[in-house]
Amino acid sequence: MSSFNFDSLWSEKSTDADRLITLHAKYDFAVAYPPFEEVPMYGLIDGLKSKVDANLEKVAKEMAYYPHVQGDESLREFTANKIASDRGIKTDKDSLVLCNGSGEANGLIIQALCDPGDYVITEQFVYMGTTKQLSYYNVNTIGSPMDDQGLIPEKFEETINKIKNDHGVLPKMLYTIPEHQNPTGSTLPKSRRLQIIDICHKYGIPILEDDCYVDNRFEGEAEPAFASLDDSGMVIYVGSFSKLIAPGLRLGFFTASNEVIDRALSVKVGSGPNQFAAYAIDGYLRSNLEQQKSNYDKILKEKKESMEKGLEEAFAGTKASWSSPLGGCYTWFEMTDGTNLAEVRDEVFDRGVGYIAGDMFAPNGDGQNMARLCFAFEPIEKNYEGIIELGSIFKDLNVI
Amino acid sequence: MSSFNFDSLWSEKSTDADRLITLHAKYDFAVAYPPFEEVPMYGLIDGLKSKVDANLEKVAKEMAYYPHVQGDESLREFTANKIASDRGIKTDKDSLVLCNGSGEANGLIIQALCDPGDYVITEQFVYMGTTKQLSYYNVNTIGSPMDDQGLIPEKFEETINKIKNDHGVLPKMLYTIPEHQNPTGSTLPKSRRLQIIDICHKYGIPILEDDCYVDNRFEGEAEPAFASLDDSGMVIYVGSFSKLIAPGLRLGFFTASNEVIDRALSVKVGSGPNQFAAYAIDGYLRSNLEQQKSNYDKILKEKKESMEKGLEEAFAGTKASWSSPLGGCYTWFEMTDGTNLAEVRDEVFDRGVGYIAGDMFAPNGDGQNMARLCFAFEPIEKNYEGIIELGSIFKDLNVI
Repeated sequence: MSSFNFDSLWSEKSTDADRLITLHAKYDFAVAYPPFEEVPMYGLIDGLKSKVDANLEKVAKEMAYYPHVQGDESLREFTANKIASDRGIKTDKDSLVLCNGSGEANGLIIQALCDPGDYVITEQFVYMGTTKQLSYYNVNTIGSPMDDQGLIPEKFEETINKIKNDHGVLPKMLYTIPEHQNPTGSTLPKSRRLQIIDICHKYGIPILEDDCYVDNRFEGEAEPAFASLDDSGMVIYVGSFSKLIAPGLRLGFFTASNEVIDRALSVKVGSGPNQFAAYAIDGYLRSNLEQQKSNYDKILKEKKESMEKGLEEAFAGTKASWSSPLGGCYTWFEMTDGTNLAEVRDEVFDRGVGYIAGDMFAPNGDGQNMARLCFAFEPIEKNYEGIIELGSIFKDLNVI
Repeated sequence: MSSFNFDSLWSEKSTDADRLITLHAKYDFAVAYPPFEEVPMYGLIDGLKSKVDANLEKVAKEMAYYPHVQGDESLREFTANKIASDRGIKTDKDSLVLCNGSGEANGLIIQALCDPGDYVITEQFVYMGTTKQLSYYNVNTIGSPMDDQGLIPEKFEETINKIKNDHGVLPKMLYTIPEHQNPTGSTLPKSRRLQIIDICHKYGIPILEDDCYVDNRFEGEAEPAFASLDDSGMVIYVGSFSKLIAPGLRLGFFTASNEVIDRALSVKVGSGPNQFAAYAIDGYLRSNLEQQKSNYDKILKEKKESMEKGLEEAFAGTKASWSSPLGGCYTWFEMTDGTNLAEVRDEVFDRGVGYIAGDMFAPNGDGQNMARLCFAFEPIEKNYEGIIELGSIFKDLNVI
């Protein structure tokens, strides 16, 4: 026990809240993880070894340095070429910044643009890591209406005008996950992207495009990136290796105009991200990018289908509906009669099935009758079994 | 070029400063890097492989998760045992937090304790990474007088009272690098540590002990850590793998009382540090800790002696003096006649020798007649050659 008295010393910012400990249910659909079965540990080790074998002295010197503020040059070059080829984005290694996960990238952009009290528009339901960061910097998050295809452009313009009318300011940016959105799994069609770009130009609102699920499409073709549809510098593009390989690598990136990069780096404390992980990713993906994507896509499709089979069996004839995404990690589940899934969440968790209720993703707190189900992490058969179990628990609790 | 107009959008916090690009002189004594010749790349790969071989499924699952907010459990356990055994610090894996470098650890503690406008005491000359962080959070840094043994306890108490008298508040903490200090290379004797602990209890000022050079002692025995001399919870202990292995791994840590850990984690955004690098460090050091220390210590000693030989040859009979540290990475060089080394720095750099002038480390801007010379990074013979070159440049510029 501590006898030194810190009571009068704490900053206003810090709290004495307990540490968050993540608990996993038997069937854990609450997570946001890629398929662990295919995490290429030996591939990463071989990739790392190939870099060391190729030039031990160069690698040892670079490891002894504090990493370049933009991260490893070779991985930046690889990544710039990858998104040029995959996503039609014109960039190069000097305009790319590797970060400690895409979360750091989003955080730098938020800090470069937002002062406390500012407004940022997001999708109506949105990744809570970003809303947490916005709230950490005392930025107000306003969700804009979406349907099963993502943001609705007309409603987006209304949201801008509502902020303007209510608060006398324009929002500082739009944050969006247009491809296999977290949590809804929706993908925004090209036509809507073009409309949103027009609206953003009209009001002078930059777009922070978080494209971290684009590598996880298992059917059809990706929609074009916002960043490929606009060459004015308005779009800031964020990506990640968390869902292409694994979150444990803590490597994401962004590309933007040079003035945005300078601003973002001006608020960064410390050096670039992990050089050791960068070597492994670079060494591995330079020989295995397409194989890696197809390994994940194959198993993600099987996992989604297994979950869907469960949903069809367990919820046939009920008021439940669910999305059928063509990529990413999540199915969006809804009780169309408005039944509250938030209030039974803990009970369902205790009985063995984890999910996150929709209100956790909603800046305005709605969506209690919805839930995000992650199909990516649990083994194929557990996706089915867990959903059957969920149906049976829901029956027991009179949810369905 | 960007045609989208960001001018009215930037936050007050961001600046349009150019990106910092680190340039290296031919003889680079300006850096803060460990001996690259001994960075154990193959050892790290083998360490990583040993973890994967031992339990692929466990590793793959942990990589697929977002890392535990305190970082990898096994490396936490190893580190807690290491500092218990090396430094006599009573801790365990639950009271240890792995961070993205020791910089993140320091940043979390600063945020947990300091509000804008607060005061923190450091050594008179101190690691600029920490002063940059303090200034980023709008905390005032006050350097307290030191001699070749580090902080002077009586002067430290005077500094506390001066802050109290001038500003009506007590400082929020003491930040100190007591062992092989950066930049001076000094080590604080046990008797002074005990005096400082008494003073800190008297005024209720916690100590942030940054012990990141302790593994780099090549002669004699380490002084006892502040954290081992006080069991009240007043001391927060920070360490790092940057100087024991390499900064490119981006892994440091801190240990503190549970209430300090809870406060520090309450201001943290995002998950724990790189799981991939954690496996490599854990796998490697569990079999090679003593070997790794002795590899570095042997070459660091040779490098320091090579630099010292150069100093003795080049500066004999001049007004120059220098410290002869028993560990760490730096020799502290001083022109005892007050000759300004800051104003010739750029010219000397252009002629091939890099150093950092003392004023860059001084919160109050003094020390222009001093310089930090890093002997750890350049090869042994270049330490000698570069110093001979420095002497000749200084002669040419009438510095000596």
